[in-house]
Amino acid sequence: MQRKTLLRKKLSKLEVDGILITDLNNIRYISGFTGTSAYILLTKKHAVFVSDFRYREQIQSEVKNYTVIIEHTERTKEIKEICKKYGIKTLGFEDHNVTYDFYNKLLKTKIRLKPLTNTVGSLRIVKSPEEISFIKESVKRAESAFRKLQPLIKAGTTEQKLAMKMEELLRAEGCKMLPFGVIVASGSMSALPHAQPTTRRLQKGDLIVIDWGAEYKGYFSDMTRTLLLKNRNISRQRELYYNVLEAQKKAVKSVRAGIKSAEIDAAARDYIDQKGYGDFFGHGTGHGVGLEVHEKPIVSWRNKETIKENMVFTVEPGIYIPGFGGVRIEDMVLAGKKEAEVLTSLPKKLKII
Amino acid sequence: MQRKTLLRKKLSKLEVDGILITDLNNIRYISGFTGTSAYILLTKKHAVFVSDFRYREQIQSEVKNYTVIIEHTERTKEIKEICKKYGIKTLGFEDHNVTYDFYNKLLKTKIRLKPLTNTVGSLRIVKSPEEISFIKESVKRAESAFRKLQPLIKAGTTEQKLAMKMEELLRAEGCKMLPFGVIVASGSMSALPHAQPTTRRLQKGDLIVIDWGAEYKGYFSDMTRTLLLKNRNISRQRELYYNVLEAQKKAVKSVRAGIKSAEIDAAARDYIDQKGYGDFFGHGTGHGVGLEVHEKPIVSWRNKETIKENMVFTVEPGIYIPGFGGVRIEDMVLAGKKEAEVLTSLPKKLKII
Repeated sequence: MQRKTLLRKKLSKLEVDGILITDLNNIRYISGFTGTSAYILLTKKHAVFVSDFRYREQIQSEVKNYTVIIEHTERTKEIKEICKKYGIKTLGFEDHNVTYDFYNKLLKTKIRLKPLTNTVGSLRIVKSPEEISFIKESVKRAESAFRKLQPLIKAGTTEQKLAMKMEELLRAEGCKMLPFGVIVASGSMSALPHAQPTTRRLQKGDLIVIDWGAEYKGYFSDMTRTLLLKNRNISRQRELYYNVLEAQKKAVKSVRAGIKSAEIDAAARDYIDQKGYGDFFGHGTGHGVGLEVHEKPIVSWRNKETIKENMVFTVEPGIYIPGFGGVRIEDMVLAGKKEAEVLTSLPKKLKII
Repeated sequence: MQRKTLLRKKLSKLEVDGILITDLNNIRYISGFTGTSAYILLTKKHAVFVSDFRYREQIQSEVKNYTVIIEHTERTKEIKEICKKYGIKTLGFEDHNVTYDFYNKLLKTKIRLKPLTNTVGSLRIVKSPEEISFIKESVKRAESAFRKLQPLIKAGTTEQKLAMKMEELLRAEGCKMLPFGVIVASGSMSALPHAQPTTRRLQKGDLIVIDWGAEYKGYFSDMTRTLLLKNRNISRQRELYYNVLEAQKKAVKSVRAGIKSAEIDAAARDYIDQKGYGDFFGHGTGHGVGLEVHEKPIVSWRNKETIKENMVFTVEPGIYIPGFGGVRIEDMVLAGKKEAEVLTSLPKKLKII
């Protein structure tokens, strides 16, 4: 399998005889296993997959070309035995995933340990054609659900009712899991970027932020649209909306291989600053999406990552006015050599209902 | 707040000036915060709650009696500043939750660090009357959904269809999240304790294992029932079922304050062994349920925990025959001084459809 080979090539450079993979998303990426308890030990010549009794049959159908061990004793004891058997003297482990507690237990095995940063992650950040096709299907499911939800968005209905309906629609599209609970935030609630849906009823003049995602074969999508309910005076809502939209378009336009992610962030942020709303855009401009809904690259002023071809991430600036409301517009993009392919196809013209 | 006080009382014994709480369930338990990004620094005199911009308004409504800081720089820098301000020289941290990576960053702050095991967890393991009432409501929601699902269980329908319907029913009960994806495993699939629902259609003679849970105010429930579809010869299915049921009853009967959790496990396991199915019951007998659906106490042969009054956990032995099918029966129980209160009220007589 190609991913296993790519990882093996890193072993010498990392100065380890083997890698312990414990992050379940990395395990899925490398082995195809979709269960929730397992670890992998990979050396140049051997690949050992360890899980428990419950997954015996699932492993048979999902995991190919591994020596499979069903865990019978404590995890660190088993790891020690495997390292001995396969000549692992220095073992690399995933520093973002191993807890202090587990590290401490590993220390007691007397195997030389080496923390590794972003080893599988650096493979996952650039998507393969197959992964891109899965993500596109995931986007399609998300968009199809949104189109079915739209007729139900009207004054009098509650945020919770809409959010619950949206989750139903997403599951009906075939999603086995959702990346996060659907956000429906209306009126002053929309000023909270991560609001939980409440029993608040939609009212005239409300900005309504809907943030949701779908899943296909383990790959997520993530998008946001903001709508507006008619009222006599909606000039401020409209102004906020078009400021965010313009910032969002500028950020999307800046995307290409070779640009720093901080520059994409700046494209949106500078515009919002310039319009006088710099203090009301407190989060980063985007994040990678794949097997996790928040993964690398991080698109933010703090980040120095360089964008590469076939990275997939969100572009989602926002303006949030406490007590009044907020706007966020979020597309997913696929970085190309010279520009971005925008994966989200839902219209961005302000929809006034 | 009482929980904060109980935790503070531990500070001297643990020989720390302050505790860094990073586990989100522990944060919810101590502070009431239901968001997904925050940490707490607790000293004898001060309680500092740190989160980011997105949660500003949510903190206002959920978190009382804390000094709230909105994160503006890197986490470890902020922690260093807070420790300096509040005189924290030795800082305890949660060893099960802090990653190696983050521990390493903490080291660079030069604050003396002390790993703590199960500090908030040891409070959470025994439930308060309020928590018990939340769990009971969560059980009620799960049972109500199951009763509505039952008429739909029949030959010809698929596992996925039933599982999806069940999740809809649970959400309609008001659950804001589900503890795990509903398991519907039929026929030979029921031999996989953690099977994902497939497109397999239910057939005559199938054992059907349904494992699901609900939520109420953050507290989960977890239960399993196994049903049977009529057929000419169902004697083996019936035999398996009543062996599991008898084992389950014996384990429930053994529950009382003061018993070791391994003894509860043995009550079920010895019976299954004696019936000749010892090799086909590969998992533990149960686990605690609360803010997490799998928490302490662990009821297993490996575990030495002593059961205390007002612990809540599952009792769920099973027999799984590869290629044929499996049976699991799972109730939730509340440990009392002399016996268990069984929280699950759904009937356990074999339902043949």
